[in-house]
This record gives sequence, C-alpha cells and structure tokens, in this order.
Amino acid sequence: MKLTILGCYAATPRTLTNPTSQVLEIKNHLFLIDCGEGTQVQLRKHKIKFSRINHIFISHLHGDHFFGLPGLISTFRLLGRDKELHVHGPKGIKEAITLFLKLGDSWTNFPLRFHELISKESELIFEDEKVSVTTVPLNHRIYTNGFLFKEKVGERKLNIEAVTKFKVDKAYFHNIKKGKNVTLDSGQVIQNKELSFDPPAPLSYAFCSDTVYMPELSEQIKHVSVLYHESTFLNKEKLLATKTKHSTATQAALVAKEAQVNTLVLGHYSTRYKSIALFKEEAQTVFENVVLAEDGAVFEF
Amino acid sequence: MKLTILGCYAATPRTLTNPTSQVLEIKNHLFLIDCGEGTQVQLRKHKIKFSRINHIFISHLHGDHFFGLPGLISTFRLLGRDKELHVHGPKGIKEAITLFLKLGDSWTNFPLRFHELISKESELIFEDEKVSVTTVPLNHRIYTNGFLFKEKVGERKLNIEAVTKFKVDKAYFHNIKKGKNVTLDSGQVIQNKELSFDPPAPLSYAFCSDTVYMPELSEQIKHVSVLYHESTFLNKEKLLATKTKHSTATQAALVAKEAQVNTLVLGHYSTRYKSIALFKEEAQTVFENVVLAEDGAVFEF
Repeated sequence: MKLTILGCYAATPRTLTNPTSQVLEIKNHLFLIDCGEGTQVQLRKHKIKFSRINHIFISHLHGDHFFGLPGLISTFRLLGRDKELHVHGPKGIKEAITLFLKLGDSWTNFPLRFHELISKESELIFEDEKVSVTTVPLNHRIYTNGFLFKEKVGERKLNIEAVTKFKVDKAYFHNIKKGKNVTLDSGQVIQNKELSFDPPAPLSYAFCSDTVYMPELSEQIKHVSVLYHESTFLNKEKLLATKTKHSTATQAALVAKEAQVNTLVLGHYSTRYKSIALFKEEAQTVFENVVLAEDGAVFEF
Repeated sequence: MKLTILGCYAATPRTLTNPTSQVLEIKNHLFLIDCGEGTQVQLRKHKIKFSRINHIFISHLHGDHFFGLPGLISTFRLLGRDKELHVHGPKGIKEAITLFLKLGDSWTNFPLRFHELISKESELIFEDEKVSVTTVPLNHRIYTNGFLFKEKVGERKLNIEAVTKFKVDKAYFHNIKKGKNVTLDSGQVIQNKELSFDPPAPLSYAFCSDTVYMPELSEQIKHVSVLYHESTFLNKEKLLATKTKHSTATQAALVAKEAQVNTLVLGHYSTRYKSIALFKEEAQTVFENVVLAEDGAVFEF
C-alpha cells in the first residue's frame, strides 16, 4: 500500500503548497482522493500515470478539495482517454462538472460515471475481489465523507515443502490456497494449515478530512493500519477548530489512540503556522506513531 | 501600460507551463484577462496584489481560460475582500460560478457582479474617464470575445514657460489643460497650443485569443499599440489550425501587419513544439516587431 501526498494544506493553493489531494495505491488500484486546484499538475510532477486512475473519491465540495476536478477531467479527455472514469462524491458534483463541460462544449469522449453520496450512514461504495471502500461520515460545515479503504484477506500461501513431502498433486493447489483440506488417494486427510501459510494481514487506510473532532469516529476505523486525520490547527486554536469544524493535532491523535491504529498521518495544515513540525510534536504527546504529510511525500506501508 | 503574462500555453496546465491568464496594468487599473487553472498561484508568484483586481475579463469558457476562476473568487473571499468584483464573460459564467460557490456553501462576502456577454457585435463593456474596454468578437469553437483596452486622450500638459511669460493666472490652468484658449485682462486671446503641449499618445491593447484566422479583425484593432494574438500552431499545421479554429504564427502576423499595430505579442502555444522561438521566426517573415509571451514575462509599453 502506497500513499502519495499531492497536496495537504488547508484553504488556498500557494506558490509552494497545494490543497488536498492524494493517491492511494492499493492492490494495484490507483485511487485519487480529493482534487484541489492544481492536482493535475501535481500528478504530472510525481509522474503518476493519468490512465491508471479509474476512481476518484471527493470528500466534500469545498474548493480546496474539489476545484481541480473539472480541469483534471478535461485533461483526461485531451489525453484521449477511453476507459470509464468513476467519480464518487457528494450530491451536486454531477451537476457541477456537467455544467462546466457543457459550457465549454467539451463533453468527455469516455464514459464518466458519477456516484453521488447522500447518506449520513457509512455505506459500501466500491468493492471487487481485493479491495472494499466504504464512506466514513464526518462532521464538517457541509456534507462530508471520509473514506475507508480495506484490502480483503488474500489467498493462503502454498507451503511448497509440505506439498512436496505429501506428494500433493498440482490439481489441489487452487483449493489449498482457498483454505480447503486435501484427501489423498490413500484416504488420508491433510489439514489445510499443514499445507499452507496464512496470507499477509490485510492493510487498511482511513482518510478523514475535513472534520471537527469526533470521538465516535474511532469505532468505525478501529485498528486501521493507517489513519490520515486532518489537523488544521494546534491545540491553542482549539476553539477556532471547533467553530470552523476542523480538528487540532491533539484531537487527531486522540482518535488514533482510541482507534488503536498503527500509523497516524497528519495533514490539512492551516498556513498560519511557521513549521508543521509543531503538529507532530503536539500529536506525539498523545500517540506515538505520527508522520507528517507533506506535498510530494510518499509513504509505503 | 504594463502586461504581465501569467500563463500563455494552450490546453492543459503542466509542471512548467500555465494556461492563459494575464494582467494588464493600464491607467492605474489592474485588469485580469482570462483565468486558467493555477492563475491564483501565478498571481502570488508574481506578487500581484489580489486587492487591486476589480475587473476580470473572460474570453470564453474553455477550461484553459476559465477553470481558475472559482478558486480565485473563493480566495478573494478567504482574504476578506469587501470591494466589488466585476466579472465580464460569456453567458453561463454566472450560473457556473454561482453553482460552485453554492455547493461549497461559500458565497462571497463581497459584491460579485457578473456582466454576461451574448452579443456577436463589438460592444463597450467598461468605461471611466481614463480607459475604455470593448469586446472583439472572435471566431472559435464556442462563443468567444477578445478585448480591446484603450487609454483615453489625457489632459494637455501645461507649458510652464509660456504661462509664466504671459503671466496667466493659476485659475486658468484647469481650462488650459482641457484645451481652452485664454483671454487675458488686456483682452488679448492666447491660443491654447501656445500654452500647452499635446498629451502623450494614448496606448491601446488588443487581446485576441482564441480564434481562427480572421482577416477582418484588422479593421477593429487598426493601429493598436500592442496586439496579443494567439498562435497555437506553426504554418505547417495550418490545416489543423483551421479545423480546431486556432491560428498560426503566420496568420497572427498577417493580422498585425494589416492592422498596422506597433507590437505583436504571440502566445497560446501548443505544447507540441520543442521551442517557442520557432513562432517568432515564422511571424517575423511577415511582420517585424514580434515578441513572445512566456509565463512570467513582463512587458512595459
């Protein structure tokens, strides 16, 4: 699982910082999460192949998470894309994008599928044999969802030494990987766990931005491998955070601690602070394993 | 008159090139012309004060001339703007921007005035005592206008030596600057031209992008000081230019020559060419005084 931060600052794009966008590579999918202005340039800068992006997840329709989308979709068109593109986001996103493309008489020549979200409950919005994506309802000034990406438990790994020893025919390998026992010609039954190893533990990633501090969040994201939680402010601006429905670094860490996640990634920093190192220092007073998102940072988990 | 090129490339924003946007400083106005994605970052990079921009002119609603506008307007709001902002552009621009701001529940706290254009004839769209702006109807794939910015003839300059010699009272100075003659107490009439100098010749700037080659364009922009004319292609792609309703460098130069402009600025280059110097070489076979727009270039006229 690989996370590339294209932008992780709040509010407006600036000369050296970009608004929210990130790419999650998970089980061979490239999922784009949020799309602030300038995202397409960040994709180019980090040499991420546009053609590998088939699903875009938009948390909410504030500009710093969304205003790069019309341009990105137009660029897909100019690049001659023909594959389907799926856009998951709040109700209204279809009307907005459609209007922009219509005004420019630039409708896409590839199928553009919108999946509009309205539920205030968590729901499954994508699933295949390897990954599932569910929404994580957040509490911000407008309708907002985080997203929980989960790898499914993979196939068991064949124990080559064991199958050789028991002279198990290749024809059984498929069933062994699925967890089944094997009955030899002699009638002897060999338990699956003698012939295979557990698959690697599935990883999971929760993207939670933007939101006010939600202690109850930890229930839905319990034990995720990696939690990205917004920390627009430091604790001294706690009142401002509550008022604007954002979180502090301390609050992000409290969620991480309560949810017993493995790694907490902080981001969505207000540009009022001189150094983002302050966010890590503050969060680590509550939860140890904290890393800082930075534009261009790549994390492999 | 000062022209700052924020972006001058066709199609998509890239790591090192920006789509169309420029700032014209004329008689103390800062006019923003077109607003491709990333314009607000370019404004910051070139240290142009957001608060000095009160009028934005949008030629047409293709993304590379327009997709930076929702973000720029949102940023005006975040910066606490309270002054009116005027947006001049094709019909539909109001609905588009309004929808984006409404979806983000981020309506501006300053008056946002849209002036939607529908006419296929040139029309006066802004005027004060120093400057006028008229549309220049162009011929592109969708409804498009160029813009003609003209300084008005200023006041005449007082000839200090002459007014001293004739002992003209200060009370007359205002009228002298307006071009009036002076009758002295003795009854003697002194012709204005003996008491004042001609004002500096007014400058003018025509922005023509995007458009197919329009020989008739030269009539409306006759004798402008500076013509910015798109040159998406070189002459060898002339057929493609016609098909996509763009122009070649040669065609831009033909318009400049026919209109007898002083300076031709080329821009809106397709990114297919390795060097933009080719555009200048080609145009100069037709018209001598050619300069190349480049992102970040500043021209003083």
